Amino acid sequence: MIPHYKDMAADCLFCQIVAGTHTAAIVFQDGQLLAFLDHRPLFPGHCLLIPREHREVLADVPAEEISPLFIAAQRLSRAMESALGAEGSFVAINNRVSQSVPHLHVHVVPRRRKDGLKGFFWPRGKYASDEQMEEVRQKLEKAL
Amino acid sequence: MIPHYKDMAADCLFCQIVAGTHTAAIVFQDGQLLAFLDHRPLFPGHCLLIPREHREVLADVPAEEISPLFIAAQRLSRAMESALGAEGSFVAINNRVSQSVPHLHVHVVPRRRKDGLKGFFWPRGKYASDEQMEEVRQKLEKAL
Repeated sequence: MIPHYKDMAADCLFCQIVAGTHTAAIVFQDGQLLAFLDHRPLFPGHCLLIPREHREVLADVPAEEISPLFIAAQRLSRAMESALGAEGSFVAINNRVSQSVPHLHVHVVPRRRKDGLKGFFWPRGKYASDEQMEEVRQKLEKAL
Repeated sequence: MIPHYKDMAADCLFCQIVAGTHTAAIVFQDGQLLAFLDHRPLFPGHCLLIPREHREVLADVPAEEISPLFIAAQRLSRAMESALGAEGSFVAINNRVSQSVPHLHVHVVPRRRKDGLKGFFWPRGKYASDEQMEEVRQKLEKAL
């Protein structure tokens, strides 16, 4: 909920890529979107898909821009398989936390079954009790 | 690209949740979508958002169903902050590889800056050379 996009955009690396003042290995672009190779890939072919307009996080994208964004993510996901021989893909967005550049970017990463990344990569836990789980459920339900 | 959804769906855990024959801690539902708590959360509040219809991966979702799906992901992402006090969220889809249930599910996970998950959680690499990077770029560009 940062209100001063226009101010931020000048310092934004991804806005600079959109403006052409910073180079990137672009794989796809149209009037609204841009996709380019992450220069520190999880695996070769790891792409970042961004809206040209400066949006910070997923929640900031206007409803009418959602469909083009994720249809492009679908295309990238398919291209991981058709162009790079991937067996699957990982599509992910870090909103605010772990977000290196505060300009929304959808990671699309080629995956293979024996690529060394196991499961969901992270330690998963359990709820301490059914009551705790129900409490969390109710909080979310009310907010939705 | 598995052609026999109807056959698979009978054995699909998430189709059973949709059908009501398997319980889940549901936080949101409408005519097309369902969101419920992951029972093995990264953090409490970790939700799985699914289409009611059996789709295997993101690339299988028809264009007209993309917008409702990700607008719901936006709502969940906002609810992580408003209902659970998260500082951000992680939104992710495993397509085929690392996909525990072969029914598309969007993970929406509450994040905090000091939650113990660093960076993108995984070792990131570099391209061996500019030539290798350009080769990968061209392959993707042609497929897109």
